[in-house]
Amino acid sequence: MKLYTYFRSSAAYRVRIALNVKGLAHDQIPIHFLKNGGEHRQPAYLAVNPQGLIPALEDHGQVIGQSMAIIEYLDEAYPETPRLLPADPMARAQVRALTLGIACDIHPLNNLRVLNYLKGPLGHDQDTVNRWYAHWINEGFRSLEENIRRHGSKHHAFGDSLTMADVFLVPQVYNARRFNVDTTAFPNITRIADHLLTLPPFTAAAPHLQPDAE
Amino acid sequence: MKLYTYFRSSAAYRVRIALNVKGLAHDQIPIHFLKNGGEHRQPAYLAVNPQGLIPALEDHGQVIGQSMAIIEYLDEAYPETPRLLPADPMARAQVRALTLGIACDIHPLNNLRVLNYLKGPLGHDQDTVNRWYAHWINEGFRSLEENIRRHGSKHHAFGDSLTMADVFLVPQVYNARRFNVDTTAFPNITRIADHLLTLPPFTAAAPHLQPDAE
Repeated sequence: MKLYTYFRSSAAYRVRIALNVKGLAHDQIPIHFLKNGGEHRQPAYLAVNPQGLIPALEDHGQVIGQSMAIIEYLDEAYPETPRLLPADPMARAQVRALTLGIACDIHPLNNLRVLNYLKGPLGHDQDTVNRWYAHWINEGFRSLEENIRRHGSKHHAFGDSLTMADVFLVPQVYNARRFNVDTTAFPNITRIADHLLTLPPFTAAAPHLQPDAE
Repeated sequence: MKLYTYFRSSAAYRVRIALNVKGLAHDQIPIHFLKNGGEHRQPAYLAVNPQGLIPALEDHGQVIGQSMAIIEYLDEAYPETPRLLPADPMARAQVRALTLGIACDIHPLNNLRVLNYLKGPLGHDQDTVNRWYAHWINEGFRSLEENIRRHGSKHHAFGDSLTMADVFLVPQVYNARRFNVDTTAFPNITRIADHLLTLPPFTAAAPHLQPDAE
Protein backbone atom coordinates (compact mmCIF):
# COMPACT_ATOMS: atom_id res chain seq x y z
CA MET A 1 0.00 0.00 0.00
CA LYS A 2 1.10 3.55 -0.74
CA LEU A 3 -0.16 6.58 1.16
CA TYR A 4 0.13 9.93 -0.58
CA THR A 5 0.50 12.25 2.37
CA TYR A 6 1.62 15.62 3.72
CA PHE A 7 2.74 15.79 7.33
CA ARG A 8 0.51 18.76 8.18
CA SER A 9 -2.66 17.58 6.36
CA SER A 10 -5.14 16.62 9.03
CA ALA A 11 -6.99 14.37 6.57
CA ALA A 12 -3.74 12.45 6.01
CA TYR A 13 -3.22 12.38 9.80
CA ARG A 14 -6.57 10.50 10.12
CA VAL A 15 -5.45 7.85 7.64
CA ARG A 16 -2.04 7.48 9.31
CA ILE A 17 -3.83 6.80 12.62
CA ALA A 18 -6.14 4.24 10.99
CA LEU A 19 -3.23 2.43 9.29
CA ASN A 20 -1.38 2.32 12.63
CA VAL A 21 -4.43 1.08 14.58
CA LYS A 22 -4.95 -1.66 12.01
CA GLY A 23 -1.21 -2.41 11.83
CA LEU A 24 -1.10 -2.23 8.03
CA ALA A 25 2.31 -1.82 6.41
CA HIS A 26 2.54 0.96 3.82
CA ASP A 27 4.93 3.36 2.10
CA GLN A 28 4.49 7.08 2.52
CA ILE A 29 4.80 9.25 -0.57
CA PRO A 30 5.08 12.88 0.54
CA ILE A 31 3.28 15.50 -1.57
CA HIS A 32 4.31 19.01 -0.53
CA PHE A 33 1.47 21.55 -0.23
CA LEU A 34 3.65 24.62 -0.70
CA LYS A 35 6.70 23.67 -2.84
CA ASN A 36 6.43 24.31 -6.61
CA GLY A 37 3.08 26.08 -6.14
CA GLY A 38 1.75 22.98 -4.39
CA GLU A 39 2.80 19.52 -5.58
CA HIS A 40 -0.83 18.39 -5.10
CA ARG A 41 -1.81 20.66 -8.00
CA GLN A 42 0.83 19.36 -10.42
CA PRO A 43 -0.10 17.00 -13.29
CA ALA A 44 1.88 14.11 -11.74
CA TYR A 45 -0.33 14.05 -8.65
CA LEU A 46 -3.55 14.94 -10.49
CA ALA A 47 -3.02 11.80 -12.57
CA VAL A 48 -3.07 9.84 -9.30
CA ASN A 49 -5.94 11.77 -7.66
CA PRO A 50 -7.93 14.12 -9.91
CA GLN A 51 -9.27 15.95 -6.87
CA GLY A 52 -5.75 17.14 -6.08
CA LEU A 53 -6.43 16.65 -2.39
CA ILE A 54 -4.37 14.79 0.20
CA PRO A 55 -4.49 11.95 1.18
CA ALA A 56 -4.89 9.22 -1.41
CA LEU A 57 -4.28 5.52 -0.86
CA GLU A 58 -3.09 3.08 -3.49
CA ASP A 59 -3.87 -0.58 -2.88
CA HIS A 60 -3.79 -3.41 -5.41
CA GLY A 61 -2.94 -0.78 -8.05
CA GLN A 62 -6.11 1.26 -7.48
CA VAL A 63 -6.25 4.71 -5.94
CA ILE A 64 -8.85 5.85 -3.41
CA GLY A 65 -9.32 9.50 -2.47
CA GLN A 66 -11.11 10.99 0.58
CA SER A 67 -9.90 10.02 4.04
CA MET A 68 -13.24 8.62 5.22
CA ALA A 69 -13.61 6.43 2.11
CA ILE A 70 -10.04 5.20 2.65
CA ILE A 71 -10.62 4.37 6.31
CA GLU A 72 -13.90 2.53 5.66
CA TYR A 73 -12.10 0.66 2.88
CA LEU A 74 -9.29 -0.40 5.22
CA ASP A 75 -11.89 -1.63 7.71
CA GLU A 76 -13.76 -3.64 5.08
CA ALA A 77 -10.79 -4.96 3.08
CA TYR A 78 -8.77 -5.92 6.20
CA PRO A 79 -11.46 -7.12 8.62
CA GLU A 80 -9.05 -9.38 10.53
CA THR A 81 -7.32 -6.29 12.01
CA PRO A 82 -8.98 -4.16 14.78
CA ARG A 83 -12.34 -2.88 13.54
CA LEU A 84 -13.04 0.85 13.45
CA LEU A 85 -16.80 0.50 12.98
CA PRO A 86 -19.14 -1.51 15.21
CA ALA A 87 -21.27 -4.34 13.76
CA ASP A 88 -24.77 -3.01 14.51
CA PRO A 89 -26.25 -0.76 11.76
CA MET A 90 -27.56 1.88 14.21
CA ALA A 91 -24.22 2.01 16.05
CA ARG A 92 -22.39 2.28 12.71
CA ALA A 93 -24.71 5.16 11.76
CA GLN A 94 -23.90 7.04 14.96
CA VAL A 95 -20.15 6.58 14.45
CA ARG A 96 -20.48 7.83 10.87
CA ALA A 97 -22.59 10.81 11.97
CA LEU A 98 -19.95 11.82 14.54
CA THR A 99 -17.25 11.38 11.90
CA LEU A 100 -19.13 13.38 9.26
CA GLY A 101 -19.75 16.18 11.78
CA ILE A 102 -15.98 16.70 11.59
CA ALA A 103 -15.33 15.58 8.00
CA CYS A 104 -18.10 17.69 6.43
CA ASP A 105 -19.02 20.45 8.84
CA ILE A 106 -15.72 21.56 10.38
CA HIS A 107 -12.68 20.55 8.37
CA PRO A 108 -13.64 21.60 4.79
CA LEU A 109 -14.39 25.14 5.95
CA ASN A 110 -10.92 25.45 7.47
CA ASN A 111 -8.98 23.83 4.67
CA LEU A 112 -5.91 25.63 3.34
CA ARG A 113 -7.61 26.29 -0.03
CA VAL A 114 -10.52 28.01 1.73
CA LEU A 115 -8.25 30.12 3.94
CA ASN A 116 -6.34 31.09 0.79
CA TYR A 117 -9.59 32.16 -0.90
CA LEU A 118 -10.49 34.31 2.12
CA LYS A 119 -7.05 35.95 2.03
CA GLY A 120 -6.65 36.18 -1.75
CA PRO A 121 -9.88 36.89 -3.72
CA LEU A 122 -11.77 38.15 -0.64
CA GLY A 123 -8.84 40.19 0.73
CA HIS A 124 -9.22 39.38 4.43
CA ASP A 125 -6.40 39.76 6.95
CA GLN A 126 -5.06 36.99 9.20
CA ASP A 127 -7.19 38.12 12.19
CA THR A 128 -10.41 37.70 10.21
CA VAL A 129 -9.20 34.33 8.92
CA ASN A 130 -8.42 33.23 12.49
CA ARG A 131 -11.92 34.24 13.63
CA TRP A 132 -13.41 32.29 10.72
CA TYR A 133 -11.30 29.27 11.69
CA ALA A 134 -12.37 29.44 15.35
CA HIS A 135 -16.02 30.06 14.45
CA TRP A 136 -16.44 26.78 12.55
CA ILE A 137 -14.53 24.79 15.15
CA ASN A 138 -16.75 26.22 17.90
CA GLU A 139 -19.93 25.55 15.90
CA GLY A 140 -18.87 21.99 15.18
CA PHE A 141 -17.44 21.21 18.61
CA ARG A 142 -20.60 22.47 20.37
CA SER A 143 -22.74 19.80 18.75
CA LEU A 144 -19.98 17.18 18.82
CA GLU A 145 -19.59 17.73 22.57
CA GLU A 146 -23.32 17.09 23.06
CA ASN A 147 -23.29 14.07 20.76
CA ILE A 148 -20.34 12.60 22.64
CA ARG A 149 -22.18 13.21 25.93
CA ARG A 150 -25.08 11.16 24.48
CA HIS A 151 -23.13 8.41 22.76
CA GLY A 152 -19.58 8.35 24.14
CA SER A 153 -17.67 7.32 27.25
CA LYS A 154 -14.64 8.40 29.27
CA HIS A 155 -12.11 7.55 26.59
CA HIS A 156 -14.10 7.26 23.37
CA ALA A 157 -16.43 9.40 21.26
CA PHE A 158 -18.81 6.47 20.70
CA GLY A 159 -19.34 3.56 23.11
CA ASP A 160 -16.43 2.24 25.10
CA SER A 161 -14.00 1.21 22.41
CA LEU A 162 -12.03 2.84 19.65
CA THR A 163 -13.94 3.80 16.48
CA MET A 164 -13.51 5.91 13.35
CA ALA A 165 -15.00 8.85 15.29
CA ASP A 166 -11.95 8.82 17.62
CA VAL A 167 -9.65 8.64 14.60
CA PHE A 168 -11.21 11.85 13.23
CA LEU A 169 -11.39 13.62 16.59
CA VAL A 170 -7.66 13.77 17.33
CA PRO A 171 -6.50 15.59 14.16
CA GLN A 172 -9.36 18.09 14.56
CA VAL A 173 -8.33 18.86 18.16
CA TYR A 174 -4.73 19.15 16.93
CA ASN A 175 -5.90 21.79 14.40
CA ALA A 176 -7.88 23.67 17.05
CA ARG A 177 -4.79 23.86 19.26
CA ARG A 178 -2.49 24.83 16.40
CA PHE A 179 -4.75 27.84 15.75
CA ASN A 180 -5.01 28.61 19.49
CA VAL A 181 -8.77 28.03 19.59
CA ASP A 182 -9.98 27.92 23.21
CA THR A 183 -11.35 24.40 23.78
CA THR A 184 -12.15 24.66 27.51
CA ALA A 185 -15.90 24.62 26.77
CA PHE A 186 -15.55 21.10 25.36
CA PRO A 187 -14.41 18.83 28.23
CA ASN A 188 -15.57 15.57 26.65
CA ILE A 189 -13.76 16.29 23.39
CA THR A 190 -10.48 17.32 25.02
CA ARG A 191 -10.48 14.52 27.63
CA ILE A 192 -10.94 11.90 24.92
CA ALA A 193 -8.37 13.46 22.59
CA ASP A 194 -5.81 13.73 25.40
CA HIS A 195 -6.33 10.07 26.29
CA LEU A 196 -6.02 8.94 22.67
CA LEU A 197 -2.84 10.97 22.26
CA THR A 198 -1.16 8.65 24.80
CA LEU A 199 -1.76 5.58 22.60
CA PRO A 200 1.08 4.48 20.25
CA PRO A 201 -0.99 4.40 16.98
CA PHE A 202 -1.99 8.02 17.60
CA THR A 203 1.41 9.16 18.88
CA ALA A 204 3.25 7.72 15.87
CA ALA A 205 0.86 9.47 13.44
CA ALA A 206 1.59 12.97 14.78
CA PRO A 207 2.55 15.52 12.10
CA HIS A 208 5.94 16.42 13.62
CA LEU A 209 7.05 12.76 13.60
CA GLN A 210 6.47 12.17 9.88
CA PRO A 211 9.39 11.71 7.45
CA ASP A 212 8.40 14.90 5.59
CA ALA A 213 7.98 17.04 8.73
CA GLU A 214 9.75 20.39 8.75
CA MET B 1 -39.55 6.23 10.30
CA LYS B 2 -39.61 9.99 10.61
CA LEU B 3 -37.60 12.31 8.39
CA TYR B 4 -36.91 15.81 9.72
CA THR B 5 -36.67 17.76 6.51
CA TYR B 6 -36.84 21.12 4.77
CA PHE B 7 -37.93 21.17 1.14
CA ARG B 8 -34.98 23.29 0.00
CA SER B 9 -32.24 21.51 1.98
CA SER B 10 -30.17 19.59 -0.52
CA ALA B 11 -28.97 17.22 2.20
CA ALA B 12 -32.62 16.35 2.93
CA TYR B 13 -33.18 15.99 -0.83
CA ARG B 14 -30.50 13.24 -0.87
CA VAL B 15 -32.27 11.31 1.88
CA ARG B 16 -35.68 11.70 0.21
CA ILE B 17 -34.20 10.17 -2.96
CA ALA B 18 -32.66 7.28 -1.01
CA LEU B 19 -35.93 6.56 0.84
CA ASN B 20 -37.79 6.57 -2.49
CA VAL B 21 -35.24 4.32 -4.23
CA LYS B 22 -35.46 1.86 -1.36
CA GLY B 23 -39.24 2.21 -1.16
CA LEU B 24 -39.25 2.84 2.60
CA ALA B 25 -42.38 4.36 4.12
CA HIS B 26 -41.79 7.38 6.36
CA ASP B 27 -43.39 10.53 7.75
CA GLN B 28 -41.94 13.91 6.90
CA ILE B 29 -41.59 16.44 9.71
CA PRO B 30 -40.89 19.85 8.18
CA ILE B 31 -38.39 22.10 10.00
CA HIS B 32 -38.41 25.59 8.54
CA PHE B 33 -34.98 27.19 7.98
CA LEU B 34 -36.22 30.77 8.06
CA LYS B 35 -39.37 30.98 10.24
CA ASN B 36 -38.87 31.95 13.91
CA GLY B 37 -35.17 32.66 13.30
CA GLY B 38 -34.81 29.12 11.94
CA GLU B 39 -36.73 26.27 13.51
CA HIS B 40 -33.57 24.12 13.23
CA ARG B 41 -31.95 26.35 15.86
CA GLN B 42 -34.82 26.13 18.37
CA PRO B 43 -34.52 23.96 21.52
CA ALA B 44 -37.24 21.56 20.29
CA TYR B 45 -35.19 20.55 17.26
CA LEU B 46 -31.82 20.71 19.02
CA ALA B 47 -33.16 18.11 21.45
CA VAL B 48 -33.71 15.84 18.43
CA ASN B 49 -30.46 16.70 16.62
CA PRO B 50 -27.84 18.65 18.61
CA GLN B 51 -26.11 19.67 15.41
CA GLY B 52 -29.18 21.69 14.41
CA LEU B 53 -28.73 20.60 10.83
CA ILE B 54 -31.26 19.10 8.44
CA PRO B 55 -31.96 16.24 7.80
CA ALA B 56 -32.27 13.82 10.71
CA LEU B 57 -33.88 10.40 10.57
CA GLU B 58 -35.66 8.71 13.45
CA ASP B 59 -35.92 4.93 13.28
CA HIS B 60 -36.75 2.55 16.14
CA GLY B 61 -36.79 5.60 18.45
CA GLN B 62 -33.21 6.62 17.69
CA VAL B 63 -32.14 9.68 15.75
CA ILE B 64 -29.37 9.75 13.14
CA GLY B 65 -27.91 12.99 11.80
CA GLN B 66 -25.86 13.55 8.64
CA SER B 67 -27.34 12.56 5.28
CA MET B 68 -24.54 10.18 4.33
CA ALA B 69 -24.74 8.35 7.68
CA ILE B 70 -28.53 8.10 7.22
CA ILE B 71 -28.24 6.71 3.70
CA GLU B 72 -25.59 4.13 4.61
CA TYR B 73 -27.79 3.16 7.57
CA LEU B 74 -30.81 2.66 5.31
CA ASP B 75 -28.71 0.49 3.03
CA GLU B 76 -27.41 -1.66 5.91
CA ALA B 77 -30.60 -1.86 7.99
CA TYR B 78 -32.86 -2.58 4.98
CA PRO B 79 -30.65 -4.75 2.76
CA GLU B 80 -33.61 -6.46 1.10
CA THR B 81 -34.44 -3.23 -0.77
CA PRO B 82 -32.32 -1.96 -3.73
CA ARG B 83 -28.69 -1.54 -2.60
CA LEU B 84 -27.00 1.86 -2.93
CA LEU B 85 -23.48 0.53 -2.37
CA PRO B 86 -21.82 -2.30 -4.31
CA ALA B 87 -20.54 -5.41 -2.51
CA ASP B 88 -16.83 -5.20 -3.36
CA PRO B 89 -14.74 -3.15 -0.87
CA MET B 90 -12.79 -1.28 -3.57
CA ALA B 91 -15.99 -0.44 -5.47
CA ARG B 92 -17.62 0.71 -2.23
CA ALA B 93 -14.59 2.92 -1.57
CA GLN B 94 -14.89 4.57 -4.99
CA VAL B 95 -18.62 5.22 -4.48
CA ARG B 96 -17.89 6.75 -1.07
CA ALA B 97 -15.05 8.88 -2.47
CA LEU B 98 -17.36 10.27 -5.19
CA THR B 99 -20.03 10.91 -2.56
CA LEU B 100 -17.62 12.61 -0.14
CA GLY B 101 -16.30 14.81 -2.95
CA ILE B 102 -19.78 16.37 -2.89
CA ALA B 103 -20.66 15.91 0.79
CA CYS B 104 -17.37 17.34 2.14
CA ASP B 105 -15.78 19.43 -0.56
CA ILE B 106 -18.67 21.23 -2.26
CA HIS B 107 -21.83 21.34 -0.20
CA PRO B 108 -20.55 22.49 3.25
CA LEU B 109 -18.87 25.52 1.69
CA ASN B 110 -22.14 26.60 0.09
CA ASN B 111 -24.41 25.91 3.03
CA LEU B 112 -26.85 28.65 4.10
CA ARG B 113 -24.97 29.19 7.39
CA VAL B 114 -21.73 29.82 5.49
CA LEU B 115 -23.36 32.20 3.00
CA ASN B 116 -24.87 34.03 5.99
CA TYR B 117 -21.42 34.34 7.60
CA LEU B 118 -20.02 35.79 4.37
CA LYS B 119 -22.85 38.33 4.19
CA GLY B 120 -23.12 39.09 7.93
CA PRO B 121 -19.81 39.11 9.84
CA LEU B 122 -17.67 39.42 6.68
CA GLY B 123 -19.95 42.02 5.04
CA HIS B 124 -19.87 40.70 1.47
CA ASP B 125 -22.52 41.55 -1.14
CA GLN B 126 -24.60 39.02 -3.06
CA ASP B 127 -22.30 39.16 -6.13
CA THR B 128 -19.29 38.10 -4.06
CA VAL B 129 -21.36 35.37 -2.41
CA ASN B 130 -22.46 34.12 -5.84
CA ARG B 131 -18.83 33.99 -7.03
CA TRP B 132 -17.91 32.05 -3.88
CA TYR B 133 -20.79 29.64 -4.54
CA ALA B 134 -19.79 29.08 -8.17
CA HIS B 135 -16.09 28.77 -7.29
CA TRP B 136 -16.56 25.75 -5.02
CA ILE B 137 -18.98 24.07 -7.39
CA ASN B 138 -16.51 24.50 -10.25
CA GLU B 139 -13.60 23.21 -8.16
CA GLY B 140 -15.60 20.18 -7.03
CA PHE B 141 -17.24 19.44 -10.37
CA ARG B 142 -13.88 19.57 -12.21
CA SER B 143 -12.53 16.60 -10.25
CA LEU B 144 -15.91 14.87 -10.06
CA GLU B 145 -16.19 15.06 -13.86
CA GLU B 146 -12.80 13.36 -14.21
CA ASN B 147 -13.62 10.75 -11.56
CA ILE B 148 -16.90 9.95 -13.31
CA ARG B 149 -15.01 9.65 -16.60
CA ARG B 150 -12.77 7.06 -14.91
CA HIS B 151 -15.37 5.17 -12.89
CA GLY B 152 -18.81 5.93 -14.32
CA SER B 153 -20.98 5.12 -17.33
CA LYS B 154 -23.62 6.75 -19.52
CA HIS B 155 -26.26 6.95 -16.78
CA HIS B 156 -24.37 6.51 -13.52
CA ALA B 157 -21.50 8.15 -11.63
CA PHE B 158 -20.04 4.77 -10.70
CA GLY B 159 -20.36 1.56 -12.72
CA ASP B 160 -23.54 0.87 -14.61
CA SER B 161 -26.13 0.88 -11.87
CA LEU B 162 -27.54 3.30 -9.34
CA THR B 163 -25.37 4.06 -6.28
CA MET B 164 -25.15 6.55 -3.42
CA ALA B 165 -22.95 8.72 -5.66
CA ASP B 166 -25.91 9.26 -8.03
CA VAL B 167 -28.13 10.09 -5.05
CA PHE B 168 -25.71 12.87 -4.04
CA LEU B 169 -25.12 14.11 -7.57
CA VAL B 170 -28.68 15.20 -8.40
CA PRO B 171 -29.22 17.64 -5.48
CA GLN B 172 -25.80 19.19 -6.12
CA VAL B 173 -26.63 19.77 -9.80
CA TYR B 174 -29.98 21.19 -8.66
CA ASN B 175 -28.10 23.68 -6.45
CA ALA B 176 -25.72 24.62 -9.25
CA ARG B 177 -28.65 25.40 -11.53
CA ARG B 178 -30.55 27.29 -8.84
CA PHE B 179 -27.53 29.62 -8.52
CA ASN B 180 -27.14 29.83 -12.32
CA VAL B 181 -23.69 28.22 -12.29
CA ASP B 182 -22.60 27.37 -15.84
CA THR B 183 -22.28 23.56 -15.98
CA THR B 184 -21.52 23.15 -19.70
CA ALA B 185 -17.90 22.16 -18.90
CA PHE B 186 -19.19 19.06 -17.10
CA PRO B 187 -20.95 16.88 -19.70
CA ASN B 188 -20.71 13.64 -17.72
CA ILE B 189 -22.21 15.21 -14.62
CA THR B 190 -25.10 16.91 -16.40
CA ARG B 191 -25.91 13.93 -18.66
CA ILE B 192 -26.16 11.62 -15.67
CA ALA B 193 -28.16 14.10 -13.57
CA ASP B 194 -30.60 14.73 -16.44
CA HIS B 195 -31.12 11.00 -16.88
CA LEU B 196 -31.67 10.42 -13.16
CA LEU B 197 -34.15 13.28 -13.04
CA THR B 198 -36.45 11.24 -15.33
CA LEU B 199 -36.71 8.41 -12.77
CA PRO B 200 -39.70 8.42 -10.36
CA PRO B 201 -37.66 8.16 -7.07
CA PHE B 202 -35.72 11.25 -8.09
CA THR B 203 -38.69 13.13 -9.54
CA ALA B 204 -40.78 12.63 -6.41
CA ALA B 205 -37.98 13.92 -4.16
CA ALA B 206 -37.73 17.31 -5.91
CA PRO B 207 -37.91 20.32 -3.57
CA HIS B 208 -40.94 21.93 -5.23
CA LEU B 209 -43.02 18.74 -4.80
CA GLN B 210 -42.57 18.45 -1.03
CA PRO B 211 -45.46 19.12 1.38
CA ASP B 212 -43.59 22.10 2.88
CA ALA B 213 -42.64 23.65 -0.48
CA GLU B 214 -43.41 27.33 -0.93
